[in-house]
Amino acid sequence: MTDTPKIAVLDLQLEAGCTISPFVWQAKYALAHKQIEAEIIPGGFTSLPARTDGRSQHRPGIRDGDHWVFESLRSGEFLVADYLDAAYPDRPRLFANADQRNYVKFLDNWLWAASIKPWFSCYILDYHDRCLPEDRPSVRESRERDFLGGATLEEVQAGREDRLPLVPPALEPLREQLRESAWLGGDTPNFADYSALSVFLWLASVARTPGLTDDDPLRDWIERGFDLFGGLGRHPGLNPIFGLQLRDGDPAPFVVQG
Amino acid sequence: MTDTPKIAVLDLQLEAGCTISPFVWQAKYALAHKQIEAEIIPGGFTSLPARTDGRSQHRPGIRDGDHWVFESLRSGEFLVADYLDAAYPDRPRLFANADQRNYVKFLDNWLWAASIKPWFSCYILDYHDRCLPEDRPSVRESRERDFLGGATLEEVQAGREDRLPLVPPALEPLREQLRESAWLGGDTPNFADYSALSVFLWLASVARTPGLTDDDPLRDWIERGFDLFGGLGRHPGLNPIFGLQLRDGDPAPFVVQG
Repeated sequence: MTDTPKIAVLDLQLEAGCTISPFVWQAKYALAHKQIEAEIIPGGFTSLPARTDGRSQHRPGIRDGDHWVFESLRSGEFLVADYLDAAYPDRPRLFANADQRNYVKFLDNWLWAASIKPWFSCYILDYHDRCLPEDRPSVRESRERDFLGGATLEEVQAGREDRLPLVPPALEPLREQLRESAWLGGDTPNFADYSALSVFLWLASVARTPGLTDDDPLRDWIERGFDLFGGLGRHPGLNPIFGLQLRDGDPAPFVVQG
Repeated sequence: MTDTPKIAVLDLQLEAGCTISPFVWQAKYALAHKQIEAEIIPGGFTSLPARTDGRSQHRPGIRDGDHWVFESLRSGEFLVADYLDAAYPDRPRLFANADQRNYVKFLDNWLWAASIKPWFSCYILDYHDRCLPEDRPSVRESRERDFLGGATLEEVQAGREDRLPLVPPALEPLREQLRESAWLGGDTPNFADYSALSVFLWLASVARTPGLTDDDPLRDWIERGFDLFGGLGRHPGLNPIFGLQLRDGDPAPFVVQG
């Protein structure tokens, strides 16, 4: 490998200083995996155009010298990861091959549908409240207009205690996959792990009430994942994600193994 | 490749003559893919011990000469497919590599949770009624005892019109994956397709009312999959699986692409 390069990462931060965007978390893990130094460009949502000289309104991304790569904001696309594997082929690969990338794509599309989609309505007000003060008005306005059909953040988040218990049972395929290997990538983590961990890091960034139970079998992998690269996922501004309290009649949060 | 070998398949058939077990469908597709002749050992559930000289009580499988391989009856295990790739490495592979097998394992575990699990309660009485007459008493007794906590098949299947519309929306990750390639395996089908198709072949074997809407985007891939290998999935005893009627208030069955 050549000398350690340095790549700038457009952060998307909350008032507590931690990253919110799963795409930024992915980029941070991807750079660490490839042993590339990340130079963080701090800031929140509304400063993104200024930080990119108008190149990006909403999309986070990276700058490598004069070259910018912005994410699509859709799951399963991995524009930054693909760029890094193409531009730095002599450094540890994020995707071992096309089959493995196809797997990560499916995993990511599934995980967003199973978790971020239902969690979005459970944490939309928390998300607003934890934003940088200057970001809150536009976050409220754009989310209420574009995603909530005019309902308020308060109306949408209300009653989440009925909806939160439905998410952990839907994550069983992830637990199943982690029963046989330490990481989704196998013996060592790869982008399958980073993209999935980014979902739980997003949860930790916004959640003012936990989304997973204390005894969730995913916990071991999540804790190990947050510890990677010197505790990359251990920002003090993150919230606890374990501790969801279930009530009588809630579904079992996971399948107990015999 | 050497001369075409011949492998015996323990079928699990319904009264209409078609295969019910997803594992048997997987085996039939796997053998066709590897260009190995399948010699069908016909029969239903209760004849399995007699057909295997007592080697199997419930598990279907194959016999290759004197060697038997039985499935585990769990999703994502693929004991027959692994045997075939190991025993016949010079014939077309079912799994290209370990990464691709890992993908199929996740896909299969996910698909069973998203479809067979909810469909089980929607079709449990149909399943019983379509069994061979000699299989019905033990199917009823064992299913009511082991899976339904003593409830009757009739009680469990009741009200399925409220539950059937919830399954198609949950299949969106599969549609997403098929937007970019003709097959889950890429340009050509592989075991990712066969294991997923086996779920819809199971549906077709039991369903006396359709589980998917007429306009489901999965239809193109499913029809092409049933047509593979000279129409391997086109047994006249199978039921139509498209034609689910939705009612006001049911969720959208799939995401319409812009």
